[in-house]
Amino acid sequence: MSAIFHAGISGARGRMGRAVSAALDAREDVVVAARFDRGETPDLSLCDVVIDFSTPDASVELARACAARGGPALVIGSTGLTPEQEAEILEASGSVPIVRSGNFSLGVNILIGLVEHAAQRLDPADWDIEVLEAHHRRKADAPSGTALMLGEAAASGRGEDLADVRSAPYDGLTGARQTGKIGFASLRAGGIVGEHTVLFASDDETLTLSHSAIDRALFAKGAVAAAAWVRSRKPSLYDMQDVLGFRQA
Amino acid sequence: MSAIFHAGISGARGRMGRAVSAALDAREDVVVAARFDRGETPDLSLCDVVIDFSTPDASVELARACAARGGPALVIGSTGLTPEQEAEILEASGSVPIVRSGNFSLGVNILIGLVEHAAQRLDPADWDIEVLEAHHRRKADAPSGTALMLGEAAASGRGEDLADVRSAPYDGLTGARQTGKIGFASLRAGGIVGEHTVLFASDDETLTLSHSAIDRALFAKGAVAAAAWVRSRKPSLYDMQDVLGFRQA
Amino acid sequence: MSAIFHAGISGARGRMGRAVSAALDAREDVVVAARFDRGETPDLSLCDVVIDFSTPDASVELARACAARGGPALVIGSTGLTPEQEAEILEASGSVPIVRSGNFSLGVNILIGLVEHAAQRLDPADWDIEVLEAHHRRKADAPSGTALMLGEAAASGRGEDLADVRSAPYDGLTGARQTGKIGFASLRAGGIVGEHTVLFASDDETLTLSHSAIDRALFAKGAVAAAAWVRSRKPSLYDMQDVLGFRQA
Amino acid sequence: MSAIFHAGISGARGRMGRAVSAALDAREDVVVAARFDRGETPDLSLCDVVIDFSTPDASVELARACAARGGPALVIGSTGLTPEQEAEILEASGSVPIVRSGNFSLGVNILIGLVEHAAQRLDPADWDIEVLEAHHRRKADAPSGTALMLGEAAASGRGEDLADVRSAPYDGLTGARQTGKIGFASLRAGGIVGEHTVLFASDDETLTLSHSAIDRALFAKGAVAAAAWVRSRKPSLYDMQDVLGFRQA
Repeated sequence: MSAIFHAGISGARGRMGRAVSAALDAREDVVVAARFDRGETPDLSLCDVVIDFSTPDASVELARACAARGGPALVIGSTGLTPEQEAEILEASGSVPIVRSGNFSLGVNILIGLVEHAAQRLDPADWDIEVLEAHHRRKADAPSGTALMLGEAAASGRGEDLADVRSAPYDGLTGARQTGKIGFASLRAGGIVGEHTVLFASDDETLTLSHSAIDRALFAKGAVAAAAWVRSRKPSLYDMQDVLGFRQA
Repeated sequence: MSAIFHAGISGARGRMGRAVSAALDAREDVVVAARFDRGETPDLSLCDVVIDFSTPDASVELARACAARGGPALVIGSTGLTPEQEAEILEASGSVPIVRSGNFSLGVNILIGLVEHAAQRLDPADWDIEVLEAHHRRKADAPSGTALMLGEAAASGRGEDLADVRSAPYDGLTGARQTGKIGFASLRAGGIVGEHTVLFASDDETLTLSHSAIDRALFAKGAVAAAAWVRSRKPSLYDMQDVLGFRQA
Repeated sequence: MSAIFHAGISGARGRMGRAVSAALDAREDVVVAARFDRGETPDLSLCDVVIDFSTPDASVELARACAARGGPALVIGSTGLTPEQEAEILEASGSVPIVRSGNFSLGVNILIGLVEHAAQRLDPADWDIEVLEAHHRRKADAPSGTALMLGEAAASGRGEDLADVRSAPYDGLTGARQTGKIGFASLRAGGIVGEHTVLFASDDETLTLSHSAIDRALFAKGAVAAAAWVRSRKPSLYDMQDVLGFRQA
Repeated sequence: MSAIFHAGISGARGRMGRAVSAALDAREDVVVAARFDRGETPDLSLCDVVIDFSTPDASVELARACAARGGPALVIGSTGLTPEQEAEILEASGSVPIVRSGNFSLGVNILIGLVEHAAQRLDPADWDIEVLEAHHRRKADAPSGTALMLGEAAASGRGEDLADVRSAPYDGLTGARQTGKIGFASLRAGGIVGEHTVLFASDDETLTLSHSAIDRALFAKGAVAAAAWVRSRKPSLYDMQDVLGFRQA
């Protein structure tokens, strides 16, 4: 149905890069045109779209290079960017279409909608919100990008900005919890693929909304779907809610 | 603010009846006008509304009596009714307003909405749904009324009727799971107040939506809120989605 | 260090058979000498040990054939055997060494010990025990072999035989839970690799002991470790507690 | 059977103090001889034993006062003590018998044994350990005293001292997890009575050992059992493993 497109893989030797490679190989409508890692200069002219799971620095450098030459489109899955690095990505998206997401799975992106909906209906005076995530021992940043997305959805449901209501991890003599805050906790152990839980608790009951990844292939497949979607879009910064059609124009 | 109303308690000596009694005592706008159990003939003329956590038989008998004399209004929390008994309740609601629910908590009633929403978006060809519940050792029916409500919400999100897609418990040589079915499992142990989980699972990921009751008072408070709401309604059969204003006219 | 040995794979085209094949390929001390499925007649003389994840019927047939010719040794991972089929395996183990287990993972076999220990210390008059398991939609028997092993460990900790205290799934008007019984519940959904939970609950608290498989390779690696161990044993029926050295002579 | 004894309650107006009061009232072999809070000077001569759920400062002051006059015995449940404050309690226990515990429940104290046992058998090179706890919004210290007890049990099973292997909460750019460390994470929300989980994870599987308190009365009943036990002991520092007879002389 769709024409064949040419994809590049940034961070190709990493765990996610290899999973993306496998997911691309499983599709008949894609040719892998370039594979590269930090320190290598890719020939971007070969690619319609680049899928990037590298590091914040490498992602920013790649976004700048794509913006400077007016393409290719980008799918960025790196996490742990500083606000300055996020601003650079946003600027690049004025020149090339970019999908950026902390998580490319269908389940997590549905969860985001459920969390926002629940947060809207549960009075912050009565209900506290906490976000818990667990990942494998190699993950180098915390909380996960997905946990922050879920926290933003919860804050947004309450008409708040996460930056204003985010708690530091509870450690030591914390005093009682502050009403309206959203807390985060992270576990790192073994080969856990990725678990996320948003907990809503009042004095008498709890509501727990969770996602668990069974197979890492999940994220790679979602990133490839985003790549197929983004290559024909106008320059702008998109996320998976756009790709999945969950956000209305 | 609101005028004082007179409430009766049916199943008054049971665990939930006593919790309802405590919840009524905590409000200043209610007088407890009658307390009764199976085999006792209450003076219904004293009550504006009766809250009933008894048995299927006793609930049906009470609904008939209220319908015959044109009041009082009813809040029915008994579970495990047969289809015939449910039809009797429906008939009585032609003459008196009745709120009937398997669960009076805010959290469960929000969960019902989330489950329906998720079931709408997750393709039954890829995603299986299971409902798990756990309760204390004294609970005498399974699955819980709340588990069935959650199963109905999931089926409804898929445009199905639960009766058509409900699986029997997996036990013995079951063969592979059938696409589109919704399974139920129950645990009974100790003093567990009430736990409900709806699991959505594809090959690569799971989404888990759960509710846990911390304190049984939760259900009694919700039933009393339903009683305050229902006493001034027109005869009809309502549920907690109506009481909480979640359902649009 | 150890000499090279020759392994056969029974049920070779199944999901577990392929995982065993991959696990064998990853070791340098094994040659895969035969791969076969139901209806095929393998040349057992080529094998020092056969690893079997097939069906109850095929496992029994294989065990008889090995016993008749005095080898090779067997590792049997099939589940859902009838008591008669279990008796056949036991009889064959008089002639050849057999490791039979419902679960070859280290974690599950440690869990079995923890469950027995906890069951010993928690008075059945106060504490109820339930076993919950969740597996992928293709699993054809329930409860899982591992769930039954965990139930046996719990019963054994109480000085009971599981057959005497096992409950049927709770479904319908069950009445209150019986003291001393052990219940089982199963979920089947998506690609869940394998989850097992043993719940102990009193009126005031719960203790929950759980195992979750991240990667199916886990079971295959454990079965291959059992194969390496069993090929030089005396004829007898062993389990993973023997292989891991948890059981004292 | 046992003679009546006289108990004092320190921190009597706090949440746990009131629960202890209710638990003492439910027993026929105890008279409550004194109730006091910080700033009040109790008449310790009236008490055989004092049960203290107050603050670190108040607990140390009480222990000094008891030691100075050679009684009464003490049960201390305050958490969040500094090493210096712990040393003061230890010193006081040279003159009066003291039971000190972060958790008085049977389930948690069995869990401690299971965690130590599992930690002994699971190679730190392959298995990571994390401790997670969740409590109500009023809890003022993190991690909970019970979480630290569980972490100590895990460290002890590995032949380590928790102080040497305890990780700070994961927050920001943490880098990969260090082998052999034990992490802690805390959630604070609503009315959660108390949940504790110890997670063991390898690349292929996880083992999760959890405790959940259904009713706060649990801890009070356990503290009263400790009081009944400790009043006739020799001066020393005991814990619930001693009270429950889990530790051999």
